[in-house]
Amino acid sequence: MPDETDGGAPGRRPARRPGGRTARVRARILTAAAELVARDGVSGFRYEEVAERAGVHKTSVYRNWPDRERLVADALLRYAEDLASVADTGDVHRDLVDFLVAMAGGLETPFGRALEQAVQPAGGNPAVRQAVAGILDRRVAALQRRIDAAADRGELPPVDGSFLGEMLSGPVHLIVNRGTRPFTRADADRIVGVVLAGVRATAAPA
Amino acid sequence: MPDETDGGAPGRRPARRPGGRTARVRARILTAAAELVARDGVSGFRYEEVAERAGVHKTSVYRNWPDRERLVADALLRYAEDLASVADTGDVHRDLVDFLVAMAGGLETPFGRALEQAVQPAGGNPAVRQAVAGILDRRVAALQRRIDAAADRGELPPVDGSFLGEMLSGPVHLIVNRGTRPFTRADADRIVGVVLAGVRATAAPA
Repeated sequence: MPDETDGGAPGRRPARRPGGRTARVRARILTAAAELVARDGVSGFRYEEVAERAGVHKTSVYRNWPDRERLVADALLRYAEDLASVADTGDVHRDLVDFLVAMAGGLETPFGRALEQAVQPAGGNPAVRQAVAGILDRRVAALQRRIDAAADRGELPPVDGSFLGEMLSGPVHLIVNRGTRPFTRADADRIVGVVLAGVRATAAPA
Repeated sequence: MPDETDGGAPGRRPARRPGGRTARVRARILTAAAELVARDGVSGFRYEEVAERAGVHKTSVYRNWPDRERLVADALLRYAEDLASVADTGDVHRDLVDFLVAMAGGLETPFGRALEQAVQPAGGNPAVRQAVAGILDRRVAALQRRIDAAADRGELPPVDGSFLGEMLSGPVHLIVNRGTRPFTRADADRIVGVVLAGVRATAAPA
């Protein structure tokens, strides 16, 4: 088991800056917690296991996160940081297809499944639900910005980005969560095609 | 606790047909099992509790369903029997809006939540997953028939009913499962409007 005072990879001797070490210990704890959430779900993990996996003493975990739900919430947020980006190549159809393919890939990971479970109304600690809601909000906000940019350029009519996000990501969640068939790029292409055509058709005067 | 030999409501004295009594006992067991699945999830219930709630001896439950997963699967199927109907008033938009509103209502019940949990790839006994898949298949088939009827009458272009079902029900599941806002008839109307317009626009020659 790695020594808690050694924050770096084996063979590296990091400088002894207290702030840096604390930050590294915290990062290792969050990574370990996220991995355990992915493996066992939000309600499954124990502090002992987090400490063991992170290579730190259990007291380090307790000291940094006296509140278990706060640890789960912080781990989810850290892990999901990069899930909320939508590229802007100037081709909104293509960018949305890429976004849906990436989203499906994220949902199919154990961590994505844990996230899905955490957001169900049934399974709910408030702090964890709030963290997950925060992740989703950022994703919707990224989508909204991309859609607004497309509307500004006349690629799309002005549209409610939150609604468009539900229209696009709903079928992706359904297909991935059912697990009866793989989600493909062709699925993403078809979903984006129908939704954008529908948005354009319903926005235009009849 | 009701007597196992009295299959009817209190005060009624049913005829003593052995087949009829067996059917009634089985029905009570399935209802009790479905209620417990709704309350505790697929993996939560115990035979003792099913028997107590059904007002039968535990041996009756074991005799009728030696296999626990088969009992869960049969309970899900019985409870969900009436979830798979789509009206045909001749107005496909309206019928689909009604269908989505009913679907959202079903998903919001404890039983609907248990069904959603059961269908996640993570939580999986094969018999239960097969039962849930059967329920969903019947729902998709009902939707497909309604869409085919609309296509026959020229209300819609010919379309893949399974794909259309995912496009329509995906956003409903997403909104209900997030639980951050209530699903309304206006949501259903907007979803059906965009999807049908999109299907018509993408099927027509550009």
